[in-house]
Amino acid sequence: MSSIISPEGSLEVLSQHEVNRLHRTSKSGLHELLRRCALAVLNCGNPTDDSLALMEAYKDFDIEVLQQDRGIRLKLTNAPAEAFVDGHMIRGIREHLSAVIRDIVYVYNEIQQHNRFDLTTGEGTTNAVFHILRKAGTLKPSRDPSLVVCWGGHSISRDEYEYTKDVGYHLGLRDLDICTGCGPGAMKGPMKGANVAHAKQRRREGRYLGISEPGIIAAEAPNPIVNELVVMPDIEKRLEAFVRLGHGIVVFPGGVGTAEEILYLLGILLHPSNADIPFPLIFTGPADSADYFQKIDEFLVYTLGDAVRDYYTIITGNPVEVARQVRRGVDEVTEFRRTHQDAFYYNWRLTVARDFQAPFEPTHAAMRSLKLDNDQPTHELAANLRRAFSGIVSGNVKEQGILAIEAHGPFELTAAPELMRRLDALLSSFVAQGRMKLDGDTYTPCYILK
Amino acid sequence: MSSIISPEGSLEVLSQHEVNRLHRTSKSGLHELLRRCALAVLNCGNPTDDSLALMEAYKDFDIEVLQQDRGIRLKLTNAPAEAFVDGHMIRGIREHLSAVIRDIVYVYNEIQQHNRFDLTTGEGTTNAVFHILRKAGTLKPSRDPSLVVCWGGHSISRDEYEYTKDVGYHLGLRDLDICTGCGPGAMKGPMKGANVAHAKQRRREGRYLGISEPGIIAAEAPNPIVNELVVMPDIEKRLEAFVRLGHGIVVFPGGVGTAEEILYLLGILLHPSNADIPFPLIFTGPADSADYFQKIDEFLVYTLGDAVRDYYTIITGNPVEVARQVRRGVDEVTEFRRTHQDAFYYNWRLTVARDFQAPFEPTHAAMRSLKLDNDQPTHELAANLRRAFSGIVSGNVKEQGILAIEAHGPFELTAAPELMRRLDALLSSFVAQGRMKLDGDTYTPCYILK
Amino acid sequence: MSSIISPEGSLEVLSQHEVNRLHRTSKSGLHELLRRCALAVLNCGNPTDDSLALMEAYKDFDIEVLQQDRGIRLKLTNAPAEAFVDGHMIRGIREHLSAVIRDIVYVYNEIQQHNRFDLTTGEGTTNAVFHILRKAGTLKPSRDPSLVVCWGGHSISRDEYEYTKDVGYHLGLRDLDICTGCGPGAMKGPMKGANVAHAKQRRREGRYLGISEPGIIAAEAPNPIVNELVVMPDIEKRLEAFVRLGHGIVVFPGGVGTAEEILYLLGILLHPSNADIPFPLIFTGPADSADYFQKIDEFLVYTLGDAVRDYYTIITGNPVEVARQVRRGVDEVTEFRRTHQDAFYYNWRLTVARDFQAPFEPTHAAMRSLKLDNDQPTHELAANLRRAFSGIVSGNVKEQGILAIEAHGPFELTAAPELMRRLDALLSSFVAQGRMKLDGDTYTPCYILK
Amino acid sequence: MSSIISPEGSLEVLSQHEVNRLHRTSKSGLHELLRRCALAVLNCGNPTDDSLALMEAYKDFDIEVLQQDRGIRLKLTNAPAEAFVDGHMIRGIREHLSAVIRDIVYVYNEIQQHNRFDLTTGEGTTNAVFHILRKAGTLKPSRDPSLVVCWGGHSISRDEYEYTKDVGYHLGLRDLDICTGCGPGAMKGPMKGANVAHAKQRRREGRYLGISEPGIIAAEAPNPIVNELVVMPDIEKRLEAFVRLGHGIVVFPGGVGTAEEILYLLGILLHPSNADIPFPLIFTGPADSADYFQKIDEFLVYTLGDAVRDYYTIITGNPVEVARQVRRGVDEVTEFRRTHQDAFYYNWRLTVARDFQAPFEPTHAAMRSLKLDNDQPTHELAANLRRAFSGIVSGNVKEQGILAIEAHGPFELTAAPELMRRLDALLSSFVAQGRMKLDGDTYTPCYILK
Repeated sequence: MSSIISPEGSLEVLSQHEVNRLHRTSKSGLHELLRRCALAVLNCGNPTDDSLALMEAYKDFDIEVLQQDRGIRLKLTNAPAEAFVDGHMIRGIREHLSAVIRDIVYVYNEIQQHNRFDLTTGEGTTNAVFHILRKAGTLKPSRDPSLVVCWGGHSISRDEYEYTKDVGYHLGLRDLDICTGCGPGAMKGPMKGANVAHAKQRRREGRYLGISEPGIIAAEAPNPIVNELVVMPDIEKRLEAFVRLGHGIVVFPGGVGTAEEILYLLGILLHPSNADIPFPLIFTGPADSADYFQKIDEFLVYTLGDAVRDYYTIITGNPVEVARQVRRGVDEVTEFRRTHQDAFYYNWRLTVARDFQAPFEPTHAAMRSLKLDNDQPTHELAANLRRAFSGIVSGNVKEQGILAIEAHGPFELTAAPELMRRLDALLSSFVAQGRMKLDGDTYTPCYILK
Repeated sequence: MSSIISPEGSLEVLSQHEVNRLHRTSKSGLHELLRRCALAVLNCGNPTDDSLALMEAYKDFDIEVLQQDRGIRLKLTNAPAEAFVDGHMIRGIREHLSAVIRDIVYVYNEIQQHNRFDLTTGEGTTNAVFHILRKAGTLKPSRDPSLVVCWGGHSISRDEYEYTKDVGYHLGLRDLDICTGCGPGAMKGPMKGANVAHAKQRRREGRYLGISEPGIIAAEAPNPIVNELVVMPDIEKRLEAFVRLGHGIVVFPGGVGTAEEILYLLGILLHPSNADIPFPLIFTGPADSADYFQKIDEFLVYTLGDAVRDYYTIITGNPVEVARQVRRGVDEVTEFRRTHQDAFYYNWRLTVARDFQAPFEPTHAAMRSLKLDNDQPTHELAANLRRAFSGIVSGNVKEQGILAIEAHGPFELTAAPELMRRLDALLSSFVAQGRMKLDGDTYTPCYILK
Repeated sequence: MSSIISPEGSLEVLSQHEVNRLHRTSKSGLHELLRRCALAVLNCGNPTDDSLALMEAYKDFDIEVLQQDRGIRLKLTNAPAEAFVDGHMIRGIREHLSAVIRDIVYVYNEIQQHNRFDLTTGEGTTNAVFHILRKAGTLKPSRDPSLVVCWGGHSISRDEYEYTKDVGYHLGLRDLDICTGCGPGAMKGPMKGANVAHAKQRRREGRYLGISEPGIIAAEAPNPIVNELVVMPDIEKRLEAFVRLGHGIVVFPGGVGTAEEILYLLGILLHPSNADIPFPLIFTGPADSADYFQKIDEFLVYTLGDAVRDYYTIITGNPVEVARQVRRGVDEVTEFRRTHQDAFYYNWRLTVARDFQAPFEPTHAAMRSLKLDNDQPTHELAANLRRAFSGIVSGNVKEQGILAIEAHGPFELTAAPELMRRLDALLSSFVAQGRMKLDGDTYTPCYILK
Repeated sequence: MSSIISPEGSLEVLSQHEVNRLHRTSKSGLHELLRRCALAVLNCGNPTDDSLALMEAYKDFDIEVLQQDRGIRLKLTNAPAEAFVDGHMIRGIREHLSAVIRDIVYVYNEIQQHNRFDLTTGEGTTNAVFHILRKAGTLKPSRDPSLVVCWGGHSISRDEYEYTKDVGYHLGLRDLDICTGCGPGAMKGPMKGANVAHAKQRRREGRYLGISEPGIIAAEAPNPIVNELVVMPDIEKRLEAFVRLGHGIVVFPGGVGTAEEILYLLGILLHPSNADIPFPLIFTGPADSADYFQKIDEFLVYTLGDAVRDYYTIITGNPVEVARQVRRGVDEVTEFRRTHQDAFYYNWRLTVARDFQAPFEPTHAAMRSLKLDNDQPTHELAANLRRAFSGIVSGNVKEQGILAIEAHGPFELTAAPELMRRLDALLSSFVAQGRMKLDGDTYTPCYILK
């Protein structure tokens, strides 16, 4: 079963160099990377967060790039049937395929193969992130700030999901756009809600921006509503993309991934250089999530100090109020950027400490040696906690992480006793609430707290 | 509380004649008609099907048309708050307001005040319907046939509603557009489903066409997703608009309104002149609606004969199959029209007998004298049954009908005994299933079968 | 030689009534009117101003309207070859054909066949003009005022023609659009100039509006650059369209047609009700046209009094200054309309006296009985002079006028002696300068001054 | 006198790296290059082909790039007044400024500063040309082939200029687009003609593509009609861009620049690998240019052999026939590309020998040592003759060349006697016909034939 597909959207014409490289590398890592990401976006109709299982289920899937008269064509073999309607691929999915190729080709050719960007420096990294986003067409100079990043779990309850839709709806009514990590759950709900609101407001150019990375895309496949997809090369650049693009952030209930994102953002906002930069941040969920957020709040205050509370507002059970506050916050961001002649489309001014930029590879050794105690500056603790959560995400849903756990058993984390206790409580509550995996009832922790 | 609104969309500039007429008539019927229809579209956030109650709740609502530099403005006083988001009217609702004014002005000025269209003839009526639809911009010569009319109840179960969304979704995935009577329930579900599918297919020009009439608009207020709204002058012209615009029809479970529509359509399709015209017609609902459709089917066979079954297909619990059959049917319609060089946008070829065109005013006397027996040609019986159902709709939800019932008691219907029995069974099942009114548990029939 | 053409642009779908009327009337006046106007727009490549000759040259040309699947088609027989490029009709000409049909159908069906507009009153006429222009899509509520009407001769020198292009170019650079009577000479030059300027300014929505009427269209065929064409039913409504649509007027050198237009406009501007309405009016030509405009100026002052000079400015040999003054004038008009909440797209406020609205049919008797002396109010004299010039235009280039002159000899005009002397001088200068006809060296006057 | 300008069109947002580089280098070559190219596009209203004079006239002109909220701004100091209309820069010129910055930044950052493209190889060069053109947005995968490259002199007679307009007009009527070297004369005429034709055909997306290079842009400033401007890094890449983008080529009368282009193209077409590739090539001019083209033809046959005549057609005095043959040729190209699944937008298949790709720097030494005799393969002689003409162009109009001639006297060229005689005759005829410089009467040759 094979089919020839015309790419759609942002994939521009490729040079012979580029096409040859994709061809030639059919055995190499670049081709495999493309194959895996392509499979992930094609699999959008099958909710799963198990990357490994997906890859095994479609072992014989393949993708080939052909050059033709009007541009390139993609030849797919044994692709998931869900991507097609009566034999024709859904156009949104074709756009995602194009985006995947664009980003993989660009990152490989222009970022990694060249010494233009010194990725060991903050400046080089930030510029590389900018270039990838620019290539993807996400930097739109003529638009007013409107991009609200929504974070939250992929595995959430029906009530929570409906709530994320409601919030998205009320954001959309206020001419705000949605950016998420583009998986299911809290990453899909706000987009669906905003899509209805944009239809009512006749906002034809509504943006539904999904930012993924190769490790996570299979576990959090982009919903076809996503009309701009970017595949960043790693999780740290993905996080930097969120905070430099977003004009405000809404956090819904979630598990370790959400915790990672919260730690990342607060670690940055607490940096003294960022003190005066407005950054709307709201934690919200249905009325009965008050308890959930109280626990998060306590953990944050314990680890990062009281001052952290200045940076977020908790609102439960009130989507309209969330939307109003975000709208107001985005207006302040607009005003601030205008006053300082800062770009609307990329938050250059934000300082992201090197600790938060350097890619963290969650090997057993790296996880074991994470320093998790209060005997270090707050932002370093935040960075290490972020890494810890990141590692658990990997062990839960990423192919590489799952394989590592299968081979070597759970990651071992060591922390100061009180911090350990609180961390344990937090993680246990995520497990109890089924936030770790989609089929949460059978969750086996991929970590041990020592 | 008043606000000045700029109309949006299809409302073109008005001449002084037209503005003056709207102004001057502030005490006259034209202004009152405008006021009531405007209130109906503004009330979209409040699900109700009780026109009378709505009008009483907003006794002090008013609308005024102002002429200004860049066109007209609308001054609204005491409008429902739901039409606004943080003080700004939702753009979709502004478009609906424009549509209401456009149609009322046009029908009054160009159709009713003039002898150009001889509304006592079939040809004159059909041309008048065409002119109203053309004025509203619904006749799009460059588009391929894609308009699927969805009929069904405004008061349906959650399951049924989700099913209508599913069908709409799968129609939308196949590049089909939706036309409904633009109320809640089965008139809203398919549009919401198609809207998501169109987002996935990047179908930016998706059509969500609502066709209403002044008597019903308050009870079936257009959802703001409706991006084309037409207010036809009466129920018969609204029905003719459906069958001349639609390239296929899907009927979901419903009550007397849906029964009226079915009788109307089959009465027309049974006309010998229409024998060779392809017209996809599918009755569908969730798996457990099989029984419902069996009853409809039996009633139709009893009243219209076995031949009627050639005109529809019943599919339950299979939205994908419904969408596929409709897609195939619409393709056949396209082929047929091309072969015969018929217009894609208006089914001129369809013969609509005079019986189905002449407006029926459901007074007590008119209802009482309806001839409901088998001692007449099939299509006449169909026409009379259509009128009977139409009268019950009026008694249920239209202001005029409700007032008539309050004043004179229920309508009396007389039929031949066996027909009476079957009619009673059908109506009773609608009552039992809560299909008569939104708050169905307290339904008091507006009719008596004698 | 026949070909089937798809109309383009503003021709909307037609009802069976409308198509039948066009069909049935193949022997009637409506069809003949359509045939003649269609021939005129098809003949755009052959500069001629002799309507009669054109009609004789294409005696066997015919046009038929067909109804097909995606709308109507036009069947043309023996059409001028110049309208085609390698067998395909130039798209601009297809649009003009559509416009011709649209206006003829609309005027016939909606204006003349109905008593809706009382054309014997000023208000009725002004509303009819509005409705025709609205139907043609020329009333664009969202646009800022930008429409500059350019008047001037169709038969002008090469230098004058280049000058009109220059003025058009500098108007176009200033985001102004052009409206003319859509013939050659001063009606074409400004559009060509503006087209280049709009290309440089990337003004994609530049308007090149041509306003014609059935009697003149054959003599002043629209250049295909015209991207909006309106055929008004008679010369007086055409003139009213100019002054109600235009936000400023530039008059280039011309002959009797231009004199008619000047008299018409000044007769209106001198009306006391119009005293406070800003209306930029500039007479301009190349440096050596100073003498020409001096003669016009003297004639105007003699006939209409000194006050008339308040209403126009004469600028020669300076296109940039013309464009600057018009731009400034249009800005004042914008400001004035905004202050008074007047529409931008139609100058409702302007009073057009009945004398200037009632159609004047230039028969020999009517011409002979024109009262041309100073013993009447200024605006009446202006109106009569306007009629006299209008009659000469007809005798020069309109089919009906040419036939009347051939049958009955020249029109006789009688005026008071001094006025007669000045009129004679003016007309003689037009003849001497070759402004009467395109092949001016052989001009035989169609009038006698007695 | 300074002003702040918003760039328009294809200039995307710049990263801090890129902006800083432009800033920091205000004393460096990159800034000076930008300044000179910017000045050239701003000077479009002043026809001159003397780069040196222009640079001296605007010694104090400067341009600075500022980063602001919605993107970058350009600060211009002492810019030529002709670029502005009443204080606002013409939008087409703003687009050209953006294009200049885009290309200079891109070429510097991505081509020259990196070893990604091996510019010493044919493949690397061809890919670099592709990348520059892709960055500039000139590769449009969804368009059918339509790009006609027009070559010819910048200094031509009025008659010749009108003829180039006519040809452009008839090409434009046939839905063909124009690509030139974007100077005056034969590089402007076809665009003006096509612009009128595209207006008549309502071809809104008509392309007027100008391809320049830093050395020539000041002498051949882009007319603002050019709606796509690319600045290639050197003359050889510019020539390669022409032949890989163009779907057909029309050559009008010209001087040494045109001769260079002809030699370049025929040298390539004669390459055996290109034997089967269709490439429409027409030499054309007004009727009285027959003699001119006969001389060119003789020179070509003498130097390149009889076979060269298979590659071009000479048509004089017949713009319609030129347009028809080009249209037919482009259709064949389309068919060929489709059959071979070649890209429409870039002629990858064409072999360009290394001789024609390597940049030739016309120093006195290089010119002196050019081997100009028949004792070498035809394509090598073609390549050397191309270089000889290229050097003379430089000596005539490029700043660097003019300075070299001022310092060291005319270039010395040595050729075999008969070739020398013919070359002399050809060059002398260019001088005699005023094709060398705009103010040709005072032309002092920048070369000596020895």
